Amino acid sequence: MKIAVLGTGGGARAHIARLAELGHEVHVGTRDPEATLARTDPDMMGTPPFGSWLAEHPGVELHTFADAAARGELVINGIDGHNAVAALSAAADQLAGKTLIDYAVPFLYNPDIEHPWPTPWGVMPTLDPCDRDSLGEQIQRALPRTKVVKAFVTQEQDTVVDPKAIGGGDHTMFVAGTDPGAKQQATDLLKAYGWNDILDLGPLVAARGMEMYAHMHSAIGFALGFGTHFGIKVVR
Amino acid sequence: MKIAVLGTGGGARAHIARLAELGHEVHVGTRDPEATLARTDPDMMGTPPFGSWLAEHPGVELHTFADAAARGELVINGIDGHNAVAALSAAADQLAGKTLIDYAVPFLYNPDIEHPWPTPWGVMPTLDPCDRDSLGEQIQRALPRTKVVKAFVTQEQDTVVDPKAIGGGDHTMFVAGTDPGAKQQATDLLKAYGWNDILDLGPLVAARGMEMYAHMHSAIGFALGFGTHFGIKVVR
Repeated sequence: MKIAVLGTGGGARAHIARLAELGHEVHVGTRDPEATLARTDPDMMGTPPFGSWLAEHPGVELHTFADAAARGELVINGIDGHNAVAALSAAADQLAGKTLIDYAVPFLYNPDIEHPWPTPWGVMPTLDPCDRDSLGEQIQRALPRTKVVKAFVTQEQDTVVDPKAIGGGDHTMFVAGTDPGAKQQATDLLKAYGWNDILDLGPLVAARGMEMYAHMHSAIGFALGFGTHFGIKVVR
Repeated sequence: MKIAVLGTGGGARAHIARLAELGHEVHVGTRDPEATLARTDPDMMGTPPFGSWLAEHPGVELHTFADAAARGELVINGIDGHNAVAALSAAADQLAGKTLIDYAVPFLYNPDIEHPWPTPWGVMPTLDPCDRDSLGEQIQRALPRTKVVKAFVTQEQDTVVDPKAIGGGDHTMFVAGTDPGAKQQATDLLKAYGWNDILDLGPLVAARGMEMYAHMHSAIGFALGFGTHFGIKVVR
């Protein structure tokens, strides 16, 4: 299948590599492919430049967001939360009629904000939107012709693409969205990744809870120690 | 041990009954004991009136919030989120020097608000405070002489007091707070309830994530069906 992954960060790379491994034709989207390939320094998360990573993944193609979206039959959004609505809106025509799986967290990007608890990352998570709206809903409103599914957002993407890496895979993944066919596509992809326990949380309004879980996810991560992989299981 | 439970709702009753069963001397606090005992109708959650419940639990004493707090060596806050800061502040002297375990969720109480997705409960959860503050932190600021621990908040109180009722007890409870001794008291109580996996999320700022998890908790509850008991396990 032709799958577009929008974004070139660590999370996007986890999906790109795994999708290629599963035999899919992967089209990667970035704002400015030339600029992305020209970068030689790690990003603010310490992720090595994309050009050197891409050289080790032959067959993966780099395009603009719109060109990658045009080539994908299914699209995964890995664009930073604070850029996602604007970047995706610019590719609205190429995304029309398609399923877009969104895993972005709307972390507020504001270097001037005061943070009360210096974390290992230097900040407390702060979300915008939050509580009465979600990034997933914002994206759906901005792209009414696209079938948005919120998923993947409650874990590190390294374990989303390889759930058996923790606890033998005995943990839970969540999906939410309006279109049942689009949710089925996301569910099928998750099963191909190795997921057994996939819980449909209903309409896209459940994206609020999935995004707001970022606070708990961070707190659990701090408690277990930076770099510890973990998931959550809904125990019935 | 003398334990005060502030509140007479369904969650508070779960703690009162279990604490009495464990042999503790339980002092229940309510705003106006006479009014509480005079009520003969179920509350808005369908919980039967407290008077008839109390009659079936001999040995449990009903007091004002302040009188119950004065009698408890350890205090559990089960007052509705939107009333908690005001009600607890009125008992600040009686709570001074003590550990207060707070499990309230700051659901916004505003009958005029518009809710976009009618849930089985008629509303979407909406929180105030949220994201950059929490009810747990507000209570700690209002009661600087009290050692506030946020706990219990990520589950129904029926399963908090009886974790083995779901999944054989193989799920995770969280605690957060500034005072290590107070957190140890909460942890000891949780162990007495039957908990094996108790994760310390650090300082009280982690109360934000615990309270904001209410959105996920609601969404998971809707997905599993109203009345289904569940917990979450952190899978390492």
